[in-house]
Amino acid sequence: MNTGTNGKLITFEGCEGAGKTTVIERVFEWLVSKGYKVMKTREPGGIEIAEQIRSVILDPGHVNMDSRTEALLYAAARRQHLIEKIMPALEEGHIVLCDRFIDSSLAYQGAARGIGMDQVLEINKFAIGPYMPTGTIYLDIKPEIGLQRIRQNDNREINRLDQEKMEFHEKVYNAYHELLEQYPERIHKINAENTLEQVIEETKQHVSNILLKELRL
Amino acid sequence: MNTGTNGKLITFEGCEGAGKTTVIERVFEWLVSKGYKVMKTREPGGIEIAEQIRSVILDPGHVNMDSRTEALLYAAARRQHLIEKIMPALEEGHIVLCDRFIDSSLAYQGAARGIGMDQVLEINKFAIGPYMPTGTIYLDIKPEIGLQRIRQNDNREINRLDQEKMEFHEKVYNAYHELLEQYPERIHKINAENTLEQVIEETKQHVSNILLKELRL
Repeated sequence: MNTGTNGKLITFEGCEGAGKTTVIERVFEWLVSKGYKVMKTREPGGIEIAEQIRSVILDPGHVNMDSRTEALLYAAARRQHLIEKIMPALEEGHIVLCDRFIDSSLAYQGAARGIGMDQVLEINKFAIGPYMPTGTIYLDIKPEIGLQRIRQNDNREINRLDQEKMEFHEKVYNAYHELLEQYPERIHKINAENTLEQVIEETKQHVSNILLKELRL
Repeated sequence: MNTGTNGKLITFEGCEGAGKTTVIERVFEWLVSKGYKVMKTREPGGIEIAEQIRSVILDPGHVNMDSRTEALLYAAARRQHLIEKIMPALEEGHIVLCDRFIDSSLAYQGAARGIGMDQVLEINKFAIGPYMPTGTIYLDIKPEIGLQRIRQNDNREINRLDQEKMEFHEKVYNAYHELLEQYPERIHKINAENTLEQVIEETKQHVSNILLKELRL
């Protein structure tokens, strides 16, 4: 990221049920306790335009939505969320923790929906400009274990993506592993099948490394 | 266009008030009278998903919509309209007359909103794939004359784009002229400041040429 701002954008990625929400919450509390200015967010992030776009994507009646339409809509919602919420926070010097970002589109639309990661990267570069994440935490969990976790959790609403077949989630999983090879400097893998406390500790370690490297502390 | 279909996609472009709607209607009737299978359409074309996307774009409350968000949304609506309406018609061998298509995005979002025509072309290539128009009729009218026509016509609803400043429309006009130079084979310019009958006759001539060339009659 070369945006002339002091803030840092750290994104969290992983298959369904990897535990991103809990991990982000804990990392957020930890960074706040260390005195950092921190913001946590996820797309569409309460941004009205982005919320409206997401409701078009996730409408269960839209079974005939083409996968390229979907990819363009995700990129549009990402852009607006970036402009209205992430960029102002970065400009104020915040560390921004974002639940899913560009890599989700590469894995879900690019690989699993079969559009191709390169093509989805192009439209996302258009959407985010120079705002590539400073660092990305990838919570690694096998799809069958992740989906099992979701089914056990009654508080979590099942959406259209959850309902897709296991084959789809396998493709997402494999795509994340491709991305790990493609961006070894940016993406940090954490074994999310370990206990929550182990996952949190390992994540904190990686977040520290990202900030140390960037802030040259 | 190299899509393996028999149909032809002819698009109509021009600044606000160029008279596209009337011209398309007349060309449609003429082609039908000649025995062709013809369909006329315009984005979002009654396609539910595309209509919903357009209502997000044109919502007058969305004054803080970023121009790249807007460009991605237009591309998304175009994709869905293409998939659900244009492609099936082309596969059935129709001549499809479409009121605005890719060139509108290049002129309005690419040039006038300042994103850059090359970048907007990239996301639109993603959206339309091989479905570039077989031919394009560009109705050439100076912005001040076009806008004067609109104001005189009470039956025409003024939307957010109409309200933009004259400077914006000048940029659109100049962009269309750039596109004419860039795609001399595809885009055919017609002086839309002439009388309606002159415009219709000249358009018919160009449409004939497009079809003759393509159908090798």
